Amino acid sequence: GAGATTAAPPRPLRSHHLGPREDFPSRHIGPRDHDQQRMLELLGFRTLDELTDAAVPENIRLKTDLNIEPPTSEYELIKRIRNVAEKNKVWRSYIGMGYHNCCVPHTIMRNIFENPGWFSQYTPYQPEVAQGRLEGLLNYQTIVTDLTGLEVANASLLDESTAAAEAMSLCFRQNKRRRLFLSHLLHPQTVSVVQTRADSLGLTVDVGNVFEADFSNRDFAGVLFQYPDTEGSIHDFSAVSERAHANGTLVCCATDLLALCLLRPPSEFDADIAVGTSQRFGVPLGYGGPHAGFFACRQSLVRLMPGRMIGVTRDAGGHDAYRLALQTREQHIRRDKATSNICTAQALLANMASMFAVYHGPQGLKEIATRVHNTAVLLSKGVEESGNIVTNDVFFDTIRVVPGMDPAEIHHRARQKEINLRIFSDDSVGVALDETVGAQDIDDLLWVFGSKETTDEVAERNNIHEKTIMSSPFRRTSPFLTHPVFNSHHSETRIVRYMKHLENKDISLVHSMIPLGSCTMKLNSTTEMMPCSFQHFTDIHPFAPLDQSLGYQELFEELQQDLCAITGYDRISFQPNSGAQGEYAGLRAIKGYHEAHDQGHRNLCLIPVSAHGTNPASAQMAGMKVEPINVSKDGSIDVEHLKAKVHEHSESLSCLMITYPSTNGVFEETIADICQLIHEHGGQVYLDGANMNAQVALCRPGDYGSDVSHLNLHKTFCIPHGGGGPGMGPIGVKAHLAPFLPSHPVVNPMADMGRHSKSFGVVSAAPFGSSAILPISWAYIKMMGPKGLRKATQVAILNANYMSKRLEGHYQTLYKGKETALVAHEFILDVRDLKKTANIEAVDIAKRLMDYGFHAPTMSWPVSGTLMIEPTESEDKEELDRFCDALISIRKEIKDIEDGKMDIRTNPLKMAPHTQADVISSEWNRPYTREQAAFPAPFVRADTKFWPSVGRIDDIYGDKHLVCTCPPILPAY
Amino acid sequence: GAGATTAAPPRPLRSHHLGPREDFPSRHIGPRDHDQQRMLELLGFRTLDELTDAAVPENIRLKTDLNIEPPTSEYELIKRIRNVAEKNKVWRSYIGMGYHNCCVPHTIMRNIFENPGWFSQYTPYQPEVAQGRLEGLLNYQTIVTDLTGLEVANASLLDESTAAAEAMSLCFRQNKRRRLFLSHLLHPQTVSVVQTRADSLGLTVDVGNVFEADFSNRDFAGVLFQYPDTEGSIHDFSAVSERAHANGTLVCCATDLLALCLLRPPSEFDADIAVGTSQRFGVPLGYGGPHAGFFACRQSLVRLMPGRMIGVTRDAGGHDAYRLALQTREQHIRRDKATSNICTAQALLANMASMFAVYHGPQGLKEIATRVHNTAVLLSKGVEESGNIVTNDVFFDTIRVVPGMDPAEIHHRARQKEINLRIFSDDSVGVALDETVGAQDIDDLLWVFGSKETTDEVAERNNIHEKTIMSSPFRRTSPFLTHPVFNSHHSETRIVRYMKHLENKDISLVHSMIPLGSCTMKLNSTTEMMPCSFQHFTDIHPFAPLDQSLGYQELFEELQQDLCAITGYDRISFQPNSGAQGEYAGLRAIKGYHEAHDQGHRNLCLIPVSAHGTNPASAQMAGMKVEPINVSKDGSIDVEHLKAKVHEHSESLSCLMITYPSTNGVFEETIADICQLIHEHGGQVYLDGANMNAQVALCRPGDYGSDVSHLNLHKTFCIPHGGGGPGMGPIGVKAHLAPFLPSHPVVNPMADMGRHSKSFGVVSAAPFGSSAILPISWAYIKMMGPKGLRKATQVAILNANYMSKRLEGHYQTLYKGKETALVAHEFILDVRDLKKTANIEAVDIAKRLMDYGFHAPTMSWPVSGTLMIEPTESEDKEELDRFCDALISIRKEIKDIEDGKMDIRTNPLKMAPHTQADVISSEWNRPYTREQAAFPAPFVRADTKFWPSVGRIDDIYGDKHLVCTCPPILPAY
Ligand SMILES: Cc1ncc(COP(=O)(O)O)c(C=O)c1O
Ligand SMILES: Cc1ncc(COP(=O)(O)O)c(C=O)c1O
Ligand SMILES: O=C([O-])O
Repeated sequence: GAGATTAAPPRPLRSHHLGPREDFPSRHIGPRDHDQQRMLELLGFRTLDELTDAAVPENIRLKTDLNIEPPTSEYELIKRIRNVAEKNKVWRSYIGMGYHNCCVPHTIMRNIFENPGWFSQYTPYQPEVAQGRLEGLLNYQTIVTDLTGLEVANASLLDESTAAAEAMSLCFRQNKRRRLFLSHLLHPQTVSVVQTRADSLGLTVDVGNVFEADFSNRDFAGVLFQYPDTEGSIHDFSAVSERAHANGTLVCCATDLLALCLLRPPSEFDADIAVGTSQRFGVPLGYGGPHAGFFACRQSLVRLMPGRMIGVTRDAGGHDAYRLALQTREQHIRRDKATSNICTAQALLANMASMFAVYHGPQGLKEIATRVHNTAVLLSKGVEESGNIVTNDVFFDTIRVVPGMDPAEIHHRARQKEINLRIFSDDSVGVALDETVGAQDIDDLLWVFGSKETTDEVAERNNIHEKTIMSSPFRRTSPFLTHPVFNSHHSETRIVRYMKHLENKDISLVHSMIPLGSCTMKLNSTTEMMPCSFQHFTDIHPFAPLDQSLGYQELFEELQQDLCAITGYDRISFQPNSGAQGEYAGLRAIKGYHEAHDQGHRNLCLIPVSAHGTNPASAQMAGMKVEPINVSKDGSIDVEHLKAKVHEHSESLSCLMITYPSTNGVFEETIADICQLIHEHGGQVYLDGANMNAQVALCRPGDYGSDVSHLNLHKTFCIPHGGGGPGMGPIGVKAHLAPFLPSHPVVNPMADMGRHSKSFGVVSAAPFGSSAILPISWAYIKMMGPKGLRKATQVAILNANYMSKRLEGHYQTLYKGKETALVAHEFILDVRDLKKTANIEAVDIAKRLMDYGFHAPTMSWPVSGTLMIEPTESEDKEELDRFCDALISIRKEIKDIEDGKMDIRTNPLKMAPHTQADVISSEWNRPYTREQAAFPAPFVRADTKFWPSVGRIDDIYGDKHLVCTCPPILPAY
Repeated sequence: GAGATTAAPPRPLRSHHLGPREDFPSRHIGPRDHDQQRMLELLGFRTLDELTDAAVPENIRLKTDLNIEPPTSEYELIKRIRNVAEKNKVWRSYIGMGYHNCCVPHTIMRNIFENPGWFSQYTPYQPEVAQGRLEGLLNYQTIVTDLTGLEVANASLLDESTAAAEAMSLCFRQNKRRRLFLSHLLHPQTVSVVQTRADSLGLTVDVGNVFEADFSNRDFAGVLFQYPDTEGSIHDFSAVSERAHANGTLVCCATDLLALCLLRPPSEFDADIAVGTSQRFGVPLGYGGPHAGFFACRQSLVRLMPGRMIGVTRDAGGHDAYRLALQTREQHIRRDKATSNICTAQALLANMASMFAVYHGPQGLKEIATRVHNTAVLLSKGVEESGNIVTNDVFFDTIRVVPGMDPAEIHHRARQKEINLRIFSDDSVGVALDETVGAQDIDDLLWVFGSKETTDEVAERNNIHEKTIMSSPFRRTSPFLTHPVFNSHHSETRIVRYMKHLENKDISLVHSMIPLGSCTMKLNSTTEMMPCSFQHFTDIHPFAPLDQSLGYQELFEELQQDLCAITGYDRISFQPNSGAQGEYAGLRAIKGYHEAHDQGHRNLCLIPVSAHGTNPASAQMAGMKVEPINVSKDGSIDVEHLKAKVHEHSESLSCLMITYPSTNGVFEETIADICQLIHEHGGQVYLDGANMNAQVALCRPGDYGSDVSHLNLHKTFCIPHGGGGPGMGPIGVKAHLAPFLPSHPVVNPMADMGRHSKSFGVVSAAPFGSSAILPISWAYIKMMGPKGLRKATQVAILNANYMSKRLEGHYQTLYKGKETALVAHEFILDVRDLKKTANIEAVDIAKRLMDYGFHAPTMSWPVSGTLMIEPTESEDKEELDRFCDALISIRKEIKDIEDGKMDIRTNPLKMAPHTQADVISSEWNRPYTREQAAFPAPFVRADTKFWPSVGRIDDIYGDKHLVCTCPPILPAY
């Protein structure tokens, strides 16, 4: 009790003793100081410094404090970031180009985007405790397939442009042809991203008028056009499509979901693939992201489709259940043979868009689309009547105007009204309207274009209905969103209950620890998340003039400085919006560097066999040859093998791609030497930053020899996983690689480098990736300060070692440091022997953990048949103990099988997870009790019980009977 | 499907066809149009108008649209209210007087205040599905008892001043003496509120120096002083207390929870009662509210204590469980004999404050208190050294300064720095510091008082530790918050899990309908709630100069206009912060009116026996005599009895207090005649507005003869119930009563009336009650518009009648309209016969409904042994049908008992609710199955199941073994 302790000896008062407590580190870090002490004792250390000095190799250890600001309190932080945000100016942006303002349903914003029960979930690899977001994503896929008319869709990609690039890669993989045709009327960033990706795959790109494209040489893998096109016009692609198909060329269409509510779907002109963004389905602009890109294709192409896909299967009880389908396509299984390197996608944003459609339903969406369209037709009328030329014939929401008056006057007037327009190089002007546009906005636009009329005056004189899509051959006649889920939840009461119903099916960080090795599921604090909802961050168009985004620029600059201080790098590119994107960008920078130094022949990338699947997949996409490096018995890189390979391929060595601490959870002593070795042979070092959570403020990649890394801000820097995204994968580079970072055709983040920029191209649709979530990482660093960050890392290491120690005697930790017997911030439990002794596999333990209320650790990666645990610093001793107790209790259950006390087939592990239907059934003929099934530990009580909503998933059934849209009778809520 | 329908015939375009959809009414109202049609058909009506024309008596029906604005879209509404909010100016307010800025923990704000899972719950009268908030409130009581040192506390009152008034009434009830002594160093609003309440109870109030008070006449019921006092000084009240007790006078202390972290508790100078506000425990200023008032007293006074109190009892399985204790003290049981009229309190805010203490723990709170205190000591030093006089000897956070320079100069400087100070009438200045104050703020304050030094300079020259409480005899030595719950949840990860853990135990509107008759549990939409978190609403001190609250003034003015349009009244007072407070204020206005017309002898209040308990309780508090009026067989008021009473008491008739539609759920045809009758006999009509949800836009009390009503904004106007508050009970009056509305000693809401104001006094601590939640009601009205509001009312009536009809043949609706056979917006199910046929009572049905996932309807009110159902317009047909299906299924279960197929004692109703422990136990020897117990209907499935977290509560045990603080071993999370 506070009163009982005698007053601490008074210390002299200083100004920092006043005001709000700078207490964020103690909120972020789980174990209290006294717990840390007890945990250290168990490990035989007196202090955190002692522990981490032992764990981290001496030769790479950082000897000073990080050069970042002292910590800011949560209270002050919000005041400060509000000031930063308000340096952005919220103008009306009618720029379009794939980004449209929209009316974000407040209830979805609050109950999904701002709700830790939705944003703090992990990727749904454990479907029994993830049916909620799986259902949301299945709805998303249904929306995409219904609106595009195609048969299958995935559960999101990173953005429209990368979705387009993935589409073109698919074409290449499908027919092995090496030429692509791109319409010149695609958004410029899409052309750039596809071009960049094509370059490294060795594909040739023709950009031109698709109506004149000649496919008869039969060498085009695919053709890509946009519908409506970037200038807003709607064309009939039937003939193009027919010609392409006749010549074996695949047909890809970039399109717009809102427009498709009124327009014939791409399937009706026989497109094979459709891509786009679902941003305008209720997701804020956010200066470019995060938003979900979508991807749909014919059923026949599904096994080539990139990204995660939800499918319907059945559970052990034979009931319908959702899960990730066809995972064999993905990098985590197929590595450099994968369909794509994509891993983290945009699940949270896909779920927002999905709820947007559930909330509005087909009729509501059609009304919105009709309004937007009518507005555009009206504007076009008024603009034409006042002496301008509108170049579009049929259009949805976007027009291109050749002004009657001096363009400078148009821009002057637009600025006066705080309106942003798109400016074409020929001085014509683009105007893209959206859901938020009202009569006053049209009045203002009419005035900008020199009209003297109001909206109503124009409306009265014209029957605009004659001019709409509805009276054109493009008018949609096919139904969409006929499934009950899109026709039930239209009142707020209903949509809130539906969102809560789905939320409560899923384990997230609000329930218990999610100890996912390599995924760093740490606290995503409210203070970090709050700024993401600030209007001055949400409502900025990514292509707004820079003087309207000064807040963002300041944020980028400060975050860059802090990340450089943390990594030892010299420059950051914020463009990659996932770790895998960062890998690709980093490898392309290395490639560019070699080329600039006449070493273009260097194309070999060495990658330890233990690497994450994205590494080889990215290397392959970057056009590199991948050579695997062995891992020794102790889990560390086989240095002799590495040396041999380096010598063997000295000439062609481009780089080594390595994760540190290793994916096996150890700080290898040799890392600095390895970096030196690579450099000595003319190579570069790409250090995968996914494990930065073990390094921050203890050692810096830039110091010990790495040249480039991506930082998964959604791991180490507190961006929530969102159930599979958003993420951010900015890359840090040493100065020599800086000129080779990504650029952008509209807003160039390399502009300050001028002619020194030698950018390899563009990796994301938006110049600064998913800008709107960067405040999270910025806030984390500002609130932790140098000492807080260091302590976080130390406690992350303490927590992992504490758990490994507590599990000693029950389970074996596969790899530990050679001398120290310590692990880094995560560790692998080797459970492979249990297969022999008890017929138990990692998956059985994973599923049984659900009965204890826990999400499983990482399964079978990096070592097949094992479990990798990463507790992070945010979990406190009590939670670590609960998790250890669960594992120990499970080990006892296994012992009972080993001892023949429990049946080898019908036991609580093999039958796990147990559902309510299982244990509340009158039938119960198992050789263990209902209580053992459902309440296997003292801390699993009725009032703390988390129930898996389905029994164990049958993956094989699902992949054999692929269903990737809402099943005919969705369990009605 | 949307695409399938042929395009609607194009309508001419108008500006209101552009821009965001004005669709809020269709979000707020549950049933879709086609469902309404089917429901109307069942009832034999073609249109909603037909239905409500039949239901609402012709002679009171409103024949025009409401004179309020057309509807605003959700998107536009937020833009608009943001502009309103920004007219408030956020200055630093060091005014104090019971309101202090604080660092609201963002995670508590987001996960409690902004979370429908916490704010949309009902008062925890059904404890089996309310253990979460009950635990939060029990923590609150523990905080209050620990910090004050007293033995028992309640679960919140409305504010500090009314808590003080309740304390003084308790003294009077306890010893029946009719004199009160108030310290002149209480906050002025506290003096006013106590004085006002004392007036109507016929008590005399002496205000003066308590140290000189003479209790020897043994006629003082109680003495009330403040610790620290309103000027900030800390005094030793031991001697006062001793003298008072020696003479049979009770000792009451208004105090400050944060100060008590450092100060000896009031129990140590033997106070009998302690009161105050818990606002500064993490609740925003909000221009005066909502905040929780607290009340603690000796165990021996507990049966006189006002308000709800949580107690520990046991459930059917013998496990600890929480529930509302000693309800026999309360108005809903004791009516005019109750300890107080309080009903709606401040549960949500008490829970926020409670979590604040859980999050900080005793050590954290002590640190905060120490910082604030040190800051104040430092300021005082600097101020004194620069030529001012600080009048306080020992103080916590507040000082009074007699300035060395011209006071005008001080105020000028303060304005320059955007700082608000308290200005005393003698030109001295009060400064109250708080948790948010940092060195820069002190620098500015020093400058304001003419100091040329910085904070650090002052700190360096002084050892302030000599001057602190810690070196005074007031230093606290007793421990507090030693319970584990206050010593476990200090990381954000832990507090979030704790909040979610509690949230998920409780049924709220996010799960299913809460059909509480007379409580109108309708949608609380996100858009309505959002502005409550806007900084420009949250961060305004209630006594800030009016030119800093222009946004609030505009909001009040617009809301007043709209509420007048809706009710037919002429003026609104926003001061009453609950319905009961509104009743009291309204009756006092009537009393004032009579007195002003030389009719002061009129003191009889007629109240139908079916009235809500607050009515007689308020009348009693207003000093009126209560005469009950009978209710006829058909549920309507017995007009003959009323006439007889009116004639009998014509001379002394003050008013009739009546609810419309009646609490029995019928539109009585006679209401206009009744009002006329009362007026003819010189009386006034108080119309209880709790049932406004059946009237809005259909009829107006002001039109058909009522003189004054309170409006429970937390019923009809969408303020969420918060698990038992906040609420708002503004009153509307006809012009003749306007001069008699509440005033305020600091910011007078009657200022515009000048000398015409004849206010009876003050009813709340804040001039405009819980101002910060008024945006909710404002937004609701603005988004619904006249047609939307009308439709909402019509659908509320439709929903009630639909349910009553669907239940026909299964249950009997007790009262219906005479001619029409219609109910209003709610109806009573008469289940009293089942006692005889099956030994089943209303409570058994209520508990059994929990097994079906539902919250029970209102039980045993207004008619004992019945259930009253109010669906509201927000519930859709599917939900109404589910609820009806549940009731019908329960009726079948009862039939089985009647038919002897089911045991009369051990049956699913008597054993309800069923917990997981019940049905997952290996033991099961009941004559019905586990499935029948847990999954009694097809829509109760594992994935939709809501589990009561304890079995049926044993109320009697709890009241016999009263425990009202956290039990020794709280079930550890
Ligand atoms: C070691 C490693 N590298 C790279 C990645 C890929 O990052 P992302 O999922 O952001 O694309 C991951 C993600 O789990 C990882 O663990
Ligand atoms: C008819 C009636 N009158 C008055 C009240 C009291 O209102 P409050 O709880 O806001 O004090 C209620 C509350 O339930 C009520 O139903
Ligand atoms: O409330 C009681 O615990 O009695």
